[in-house]
Amino acid sequence: MSPGRCFGLGVGPGDPDLITVKALRLLQACPVVASLSAKGRPSNARNVVAGHLASRTCVELHFEYPVTVETLPDDVSYEALLTTFYDESAAVIATHLVAGRDVAVLCEGDPFFFGSFMYLHTRLQSRFSVEVVPGVPSALAAAAAIGIPLVSRNETFTTLSGVLDSAALEHELRTTDAAVIMKLGRNLAKVRDAITRAGLLERAMYVERATTAQQHVLRLADVDADTAPYFSIVVIPGLGARTR
Amino acid sequence: MSPGRCFGLGVGPGDPDLITVKALRLLQACPVVASLSAKGRPSNARNVVAGHLASRTCVELHFEYPVTVETLPDDVSYEALLTTFYDESAAVIATHLVAGRDVAVLCEGDPFFFGSFMYLHTRLQSRFSVEVVPGVPSALAAAAAIGIPLVSRNETFTTLSGVLDSAALEHELRTTDAAVIMKLGRNLAKVRDAITRAGLLERAMYVERATTAQQHVLRLADVDADTAPYFSIVVIPGLGARTR
Repeated sequence: MSPGRCFGLGVGPGDPDLITVKALRLLQACPVVASLSAKGRPSNARNVVAGHLASRTCVELHFEYPVTVETLPDDVSYEALLTTFYDESAAVIATHLVAGRDVAVLCEGDPFFFGSFMYLHTRLQSRFSVEVVPGVPSALAAAAAIGIPLVSRNETFTTLSGVLDSAALEHELRTTDAAVIMKLGRNLAKVRDAITRAGLLERAMYVERATTAQQHVLRLADVDADTAPYFSIVVIPGLGARTR
Repeated sequence: MSPGRCFGLGVGPGDPDLITVKALRLLQACPVVASLSAKGRPSNARNVVAGHLASRTCVELHFEYPVTVETLPDDVSYEALLTTFYDESAAVIATHLVAGRDVAVLCEGDPFFFGSFMYLHTRLQSRFSVEVVPGVPSALAAAAAIGIPLVSRNETFTTLSGVLDSAALEHELRTTDAAVIMKLGRNLAKVRDAITRAGLLERAMYVERATTAQQHVLRLADVDADTAPYFSIVVIPGLGARTR
């Protein structure tokens, strides 16, 4: 019996119709569908495709992170726990692949763009056929939601993590033409300060839950809070498209 | 009569099945479908969806750029010609919108990620309802094609134009964790030199026509040519996903 194939399926940014035709077809064909989620939370990627899964039966695998950074005792290594978590999750998937069953792993946005699937990919790709089906990333969905062209012509575009320190963020923002900042959470106030110092506050837009029914678009200058939910992003569009 | 709506449809990177369900539905519903192309060439975006359009009738608009940079006499302003071209194209689309007909404008990849649609958007959005339907960008399709995780954790990711000068490219590459370089064409040799000087040649991958039947993946170090076709891209994946 030949082994099953593993697919990392980009399901897109939130709107169930922003999944690709290819990912939807594979989602409906694979006998095993896997998703990951934060501890005690439903899987965001599975939520996106819940409607597409409602009409079929399949084996569902759900891998829940054992901890969050916030709840970790000082003497426990977050990295070591994650390594074990990915090892064990990959081993479960491998069991199905060995048995000849195709496995679809659901990924918000795009699997190779800040997606957890990457850690399963590195563990499975030497032994099995693993294919990544690219998806619409939340960064581009956010730009579409605000309705301002993101990057054009010969502009440089930078994607930054809000976890970076304030000086690094400011430096990166000063040396690029357009930017997206992800992983806001408790970093929002720091990110806003860095954007302000870089002189970009007027251009900065804040988008929560792009393309979902809860989508919320604001000028960053009008955001009161110092923290942001997981599905939020700051977009600083380039200026190139305005001058042609 | 209420005016029609204009949709910038991201059709994805090349594989017709990498269009989103939403874009496909709009493509099949809009009575007017518009595409842009280089002078004397078919539209790349229309080629992607040719199969999806085969079974329906609609009004098709085709806007062909009046010149290429290469063929331009010295005394003619490329920028002025383009401005006129976009003005006239937007005016034709506006005629249909005023008449109450929805218009879908086809865009390779994502409309706001280096897409020509941006110049129509800026001309139409103050008078009409204009919606951008985000798509899978070629940069992420290329990363999926090479099968190496692109960007993870708190890495910085930079998208660069191959038109930038060699020193600027080298500087940007030295100060980012992961990168994609677009607009290779006659810039390929310069781009390869900058990557080499930045010490990244071993990690750099070259992808032609990602996700199409003509897809071609090589290590950049193994690419002999000094020029590249339009649908090519260099990907320098981050290292973060390899260490967890």
